[in-house]
Amino acid sequence: MSTNPILVEITRGQAVESRHRGSVAVIDADGKVVLALGDVETPVFPRSAVKSFQALPLLESGAADRFGLTDAEIALAVSSHSGEPRHVETALGMLKKAGRDETCLECGAHWPSSGEAERALAAQGLKPNALHNNCSGKHSGFVCLACGLDEDPKGYIRPDHRVQREIRAAGEEITGFRYRDDYAGTDGCSIPTYGVPLKALALGFARLGTGQGLQPERARAAKRIRQAAAANPFLVAGTGRFDTIAMEIFGERLFMKTGAEGVYCAALPEQGLGIALKADDGEGRASQAMLASVVHRFLPMSEAERETFDAKAWPTLKNWNGMTVGTIRPAPNSLG
Amino acid sequence: MSTNPILVEITRGQAVESRHRGSVAVIDADGKVVLALGDVETPVFPRSAVKSFQALPLLESGAADRFGLTDAEIALAVSSHSGEPRHVETALGMLKKAGRDETCLECGAHWPSSGEAERALAAQGLKPNALHNNCSGKHSGFVCLACGLDEDPKGYIRPDHRVQREIRAAGEEITGFRYRDDYAGTDGCSIPTYGVPLKALALGFARLGTGQGLQPERARAAKRIRQAAAANPFLVAGTGRFDTIAMEIFGERLFMKTGAEGVYCAALPEQGLGIALKADDGEGRASQAMLASVVHRFLPMSEAERETFDAKAWPTLKNWNGMTVGTIRPAPNSLG
Repeated sequence: MSTNPILVEITRGQAVESRHRGSVAVIDADGKVVLALGDVETPVFPRSAVKSFQALPLLESGAADRFGLTDAEIALAVSSHSGEPRHVETALGMLKKAGRDETCLECGAHWPSSGEAERALAAQGLKPNALHNNCSGKHSGFVCLACGLDEDPKGYIRPDHRVQREIRAAGEEITGFRYRDDYAGTDGCSIPTYGVPLKALALGFARLGTGQGLQPERARAAKRIRQAAAANPFLVAGTGRFDTIAMEIFGERLFMKTGAEGVYCAALPEQGLGIALKADDGEGRASQAMLASVVHRFLPMSEAERETFDAKAWPTLKNWNGMTVGTIRPAPNSLG
Repeated sequence: MSTNPILVEITRGQAVESRHRGSVAVIDADGKVVLALGDVETPVFPRSAVKSFQALPLLESGAADRFGLTDAEIALAVSSHSGEPRHVETALGMLKKAGRDETCLECGAHWPSSGEAERALAAQGLKPNALHNNCSGKHSGFVCLACGLDEDPKGYIRPDHRVQREIRAAGEEITGFRYRDDYAGTDGCSIPTYGVPLKALALGFARLGTGQGLQPERARAAKRIRQAAAANPFLVAGTGRFDTIAMEIFGERLFMKTGAEGVYCAALPEQGLGIALKADDGEGRASQAMLASVVHRFLPMSEAERETFDAKAWPTLKNWNGMTVGTIRPAPNSLG
């Protein structure tokens, strides 16, 4: 197996304390490789980074229009949210539009990833339900899709359910990659997940960002998803999260989405580029820093934009007394 | 820079999703290298993995005896605890024995790492204080050391305070490694941390585990620390934590301690071995799996012991619905 390059360093004092390796693909909508670092050919599980692909059938099927889903609700459908009150309410609102409620969700329950939201629940003597699951927006979209197709949503997480078949077809088409049985697994939220090479993922995001190579209906759905996310960056992630902050800064110039195990995908519509990357070790701090390096290289930005973006992307690390102890930074020459 | 080997794999379905590289040193008390994987010569920050070294002056100075510290309190002094009620009470008890309280602690406050303890605080409308900091036991030991030396504990986190000078001397002596200014930083709890090569760390743990190469007083202190931890594994970490579970299983046959950024150190007293390792990327799931591989190779264990140990060390990964999605496992031939 090839050895991926070191792309991110964690420093302490004057020394490098930890290092992250990874691979990066930047592709244009014609499939031209603009940048390839490390192995971009072996499939990786894109996890939540492809929620935008998974939401295409919701729009293309007419379900979103039938139930009158708002842009806020579309944004939540492509989110990995922090379980804050507005995320939870928005998911419930989607389900109600389809005549359902949270008992239809098959994603499982977990405490909100937002510590503040978690403690607020605990302070009220409450426990989390499936609406607090970071994937509840996506799953509410799945329930809307099933209902829009006049299918029973029950079992919508199963590979053979109409919902998952539609999603699989959309994912294979936009990436141009046929899913393989030896790169198939179950995601944290219980739906199937399939490995896709970074090159194919990046191509999918170039298409999502430009509409090039897509049927008109799919291009319209892709555009609505991007615009919905740009208009509602809080709903795509949450307070203080990188996706939220970056899309607040750049609006429709950048669509980006994190995935578990160190995956990040993004589209730069004005540049016509798609980005897909993975940290070998699966760490979010690494994939975040890697994405920032790629965005820096390909997206023109003002000094003010740069300052806000960099503070989040490559933070100074502080300890519990607020003392500076180190940094997260791109490895020297890693994206040169 | 050399490339460290892949030692741990995270699988999903039939595929490997993420990979962790690292380095491992196993050394006997004479300094003989029994196992070296990857780079064991470049200093790494051992972080909390060397709390046992940092506690030596507390015992050697007579402070522990002067204040009548119990084995439970000694165990807490070498802990990175989860902030559960018994951890918090034990730390406060140590401070009270020295005539002090939590206002002397200079480690900063953070929410307990135990989600349950965090939510219990929130449910009572409380916020965490320095006693909930995972290092509060170590810091309470520092305050006891200062008071035992008739020094003002104020500023005990500063490199030039008597407490830190004693700790530095103990660390340099037991590892045989002279700290370097280019591998110096500030730890999460605000005390100085110094880089030490894994080889030297492992030698230090071989000495801690056997007493070989130590002055009698230090050998006695080392033995008391190991016995205190073995008798109080809950206090060294917390509910469900690997250090706690493993020391519950093996008692005095294994002393082990995790550190931030993927460090693990351990002593196998009966085998006369010290272990030190680091995951390149700093991930705790990796260092835990790596330590388990080394312990498996060098510590004889019964089938029942193996079963409990492996279930924690190399867990089956389940999602929010309890479905099996993957595993954490040693990479093939990684410790062959």
